[in-house]
Amino acid sequence: MTLEWEKLFAGRVSGMSASEIRELLKLIDRPEIISFAGGIPDADHFPSAAIARAYEKVFQSNTGAGGALQYTISEGYTPLRDWLCGYMDRKGVKIAPDEVLITSGSQQALDFLGKLLIGPGDLVAVTKPTYLGALQAFSPYEPTYVSIAMDEEGPVLADLEAALARKPKFLYLVPDFQNPNGTTVSPARREAIVDLCTKAGVPVIEDAAYAELRYEGDFLPSLAAIDAARNGGVPSQVIHCGSFSKTMVPALRVGWVSGPKDVIQRLVLMKQAADLHTSTINQIVLHDVVSEIFDSHVKRLRTVYKERRDTMLAALEEFMPAGVTWTKPQGGMFVWIELPEGLCGTELLARAIKESNVAFVPGAAFFPDRSGRNTIRLSFSATKPERIREGIRRLADLLVRVSA
Amino acid sequence: MTLEWEKLFAGRVSGMSASEIRELLKLIDRPEIISFAGGIPDADHFPSAAIARAYEKVFQSNTGAGGALQYTISEGYTPLRDWLCGYMDRKGVKIAPDEVLITSGSQQALDFLGKLLIGPGDLVAVTKPTYLGALQAFSPYEPTYVSIAMDEEGPVLADLEAALARKPKFLYLVPDFQNPNGTTVSPARREAIVDLCTKAGVPVIEDAAYAELRYEGDFLPSLAAIDAARNGGVPSQVIHCGSFSKTMVPALRVGWVSGPKDVIQRLVLMKQAADLHTSTINQIVLHDVVSEIFDSHVKRLRTVYKERRDTMLAALEEFMPAGVTWTKPQGGMFVWIELPEGLCGTELLARAIKESNVAFVPGAAFFPDRSGRNTIRLSFSATKPERIREGIRRLADLLVRVSA
Repeated sequence: MTLEWEKLFAGRVSGMSASEIRELLKLIDRPEIISFAGGIPDADHFPSAAIARAYEKVFQSNTGAGGALQYTISEGYTPLRDWLCGYMDRKGVKIAPDEVLITSGSQQALDFLGKLLIGPGDLVAVTKPTYLGALQAFSPYEPTYVSIAMDEEGPVLADLEAALARKPKFLYLVPDFQNPNGTTVSPARREAIVDLCTKAGVPVIEDAAYAELRYEGDFLPSLAAIDAARNGGVPSQVIHCGSFSKTMVPALRVGWVSGPKDVIQRLVLMKQAADLHTSTINQIVLHDVVSEIFDSHVKRLRTVYKERRDTMLAALEEFMPAGVTWTKPQGGMFVWIELPEGLCGTELLARAIKESNVAFVPGAAFFPDRSGRNTIRLSFSATKPERIREGIRRLADLLVRVSA
Repeated sequence: MTLEWEKLFAGRVSGMSASEIRELLKLIDRPEIISFAGGIPDADHFPSAAIARAYEKVFQSNTGAGGALQYTISEGYTPLRDWLCGYMDRKGVKIAPDEVLITSGSQQALDFLGKLLIGPGDLVAVTKPTYLGALQAFSPYEPTYVSIAMDEEGPVLADLEAALARKPKFLYLVPDFQNPNGTTVSPARREAIVDLCTKAGVPVIEDAAYAELRYEGDFLPSLAAIDAARNGGVPSQVIHCGSFSKTMVPALRVGWVSGPKDVIQRLVLMKQAADLHTSTINQIVLHDVVSEIFDSHVKRLRTVYKERRDTMLAALEEFMPAGVTWTKPQGGMFVWIELPEGLCGTELLARAIKESNVAFVPGAAFFPDRSGRNTIRLSFSATKPERIREGIRRLADLLVRVSA
C-alpha cells in the first residue's frame, strides 16, 4: 500500500506553491542570459578577505575552536547582540541584548513572526505590491491578507486606515527601497503610519533588509526609531527585522529581529524549538567582520550599486518606448516597471528568455491578490553596468515588438 | 498605550514553555559543577583541524569564495546531497538527490515535519519517554500526544497497536540509543513497527541522531532500511532524519531529512519560506570534511565515548544504593536512572546542584504527560572519565542521604 501523502498534509500548507522567483532562477542560469531576476548582492563585491581572516582567527585562537564549533544559546552570540544594540542605538532605538534575537537571515524572523502572531483566518495588512518572501513566510499560518495601495510616498493612508479598522494582526512593511518596487516611505508618511498603528493597537513588522543601501538623499528614521522616540527610546509597537545578507554576505545566514521584550522572549523559545540556534561559528565570524569593516564596506557597496542604478535608469530613459513607466529608487536593488495596460509580465518573461536572453520577475507574484499583471521587477544589483545597458536595450526592443 | 502582546499571540504558541534543559544549562556553568545535563558532544574531540582546512580551501579556491558566500538553492548543496545518497545507500536506502533536504540541524527537520503534518488536535504517537526537542518542535502545531510505553526492546507492541488504532498523523521514534533513556529498539521490534505502521497507513518519523555512536554489538538496520527493503529499496512509509551534530560538530547546523519525494518536495518549499537555505559555506565545508574523514572520525569518537559509558556504568555499579536502577545503553550519550518510587528528579536536581555540585536532567520533561517523576537522565558524552566517576560518587552519596 502506498501512502497518500497529500491526504496527510495539514491544512496550513495546502496553499503553498513554488516560488516563482526560485523556479525562474533555475531556468536562467546560462551565461548568455542577462538576468535582472534575482534580488541578490554581487558576489564580486563580497568582503571575502575579511571573512577568510575571521574564520582563520577562530581556529588560531588560544582557547581553541571548540566553543565556536559547539552548541550555543538560542538567543544568539552575545557579542553580536551587543554590537546590534550599539548599531540600533545609533539609529535611535535603545534595545537591551535580550530584546534582539539572532535569526538565520531575516527570512526566518518573518517565519517566526507569522508563527507567533497569525492564527488561521487572521487578517494581515500588507502593501500591494509587497515582498514575495514575506507572503511565503506568512501564508502557511493561513492569514487573510488585506492589501494597501501604494503611491510614491508609500502606503496610501486612506487605505491604511480602512485596513486598520478591520483590526489586522499586524502591518508588514518594507519602508526603504521596497522589494519589489523600490519605493521609500516619506518622512511624513512614516510618522502617520506609526500614529495610526499605535492608535489602532496594531503592531508593525518593519523589514529593514535594504535600509543601508541608500544612494542619494538623507537616511530616514526607521519606523522602530519613530516608535521608540515616542516611548522613551525603547520599542513599543514596532518589531524590526534586519539582515546582513545585503550588507555583508547571504551565505552565513545571519539576520536579527528586535522589538519589545515580550515578543523577543517568545521568539527565543520558538528559535529553540525550530533549529536550536544559528550557526555558532558564522555568528562569531560575522561579529568580527562587522566590528572591523561594517561602515567602510557598506560605503563601498553604495558606490558600486549606485552606478548600477544610475546605469539602469539612464538606459530605461534612452531605450524604453512610450507607455512604459518606472520607479526611480533612492537605494536598494530594484526598479519597478509598469507596462502598458493589457500586457502581461509573465508572458513577457517567457518571450524575453526565449527571444532576447533577458530575465526578470513578473510583478504579479508580489501581489497577494495576484493583480499587477502588467508589472515587472528588475534588479540591478548583481549585473555589471555594461550588461545592464545591453539588457535594458534588449528588453526595450522586445517591448517595441510586443506593442507593435 | 502599551500593546498587550499576550493577547495578540496566536493560539499555537500559548502552550510553549521554556526548555527545562536549556534553562538548567544556564545555571550550571560553573567549573566546580560536574554536569551530566547537556546531551552534547565533547568539544575536545571535534575535528577542528579538518574543518579549519576546509574553510581555508574555500577561500583559496581558483574560482574565488563568491559562490560559497552567496545565496544557494533551498534543497541544499548538491555534492552534500550526493554524498548523503551514497551514505544512505550503504545503509540500505536508495534515495535520489531530490529525496533528501539539507536542514539546519535535524531539529529543523522535526519542526518542518510538524508544520507539514500536524493540524490542531491531530494525534501524534511518541514513546514515553521521548526526545524533549521533538515535543518542543511538534507542540506549536497543537497536536494531542498518544504515548507508548517502552520496555528494553523499544515501544511495547500492544501499546503501539492501540495507538495506531486511533489513527495518529505519524509515529515519532529514536530507534538507536534513544535520547533520553538510551534504549535501542531490537531487530524483531523494528520489523514489527514497520509492519504495523504500514498496515495502519501511519508514517514513521525516524530520528537517527545517535545511530553512528554504537559501542558494542552489531549496527541494526534503520526503520528506513526495513521500509525500503519491502519497497524495492526506496522509502515509502518512513521519513528519516539525520544530523552531523553528534558525528562532526553541532555549530555548522547541518542535518538532513530523507524520504518519499512527495514529502521532500513539500519540505523544500517550507525550507524556502522558513529561512531560504542552510548556510552555503557551512554545507561546502561539511561536505569536504565528511568526504575525507567521516568513517575515521566516527570510529575515534566511538572509542572515546565508549570509555565514558563504561566508566559511568562501572561507577553506578560501585556507588549506587539499592533501589536505584539504570539502563545499559549500547551507544549514544545517555544513561537513564530510575529512582526509588516517591523520589522526585526535579527536587533531587535542586539538592544535587546545591549540595553536591552535580547536575543532570529530571526525566519528567521527556514525558508528554509529565509522568516519570522518579527518573533522571545522565549524559556521559561531554565529561572526562575521572569526572564521571567522581560525579556518580557524589550523586550516589546524595541519594543515600535522601533515602535515609
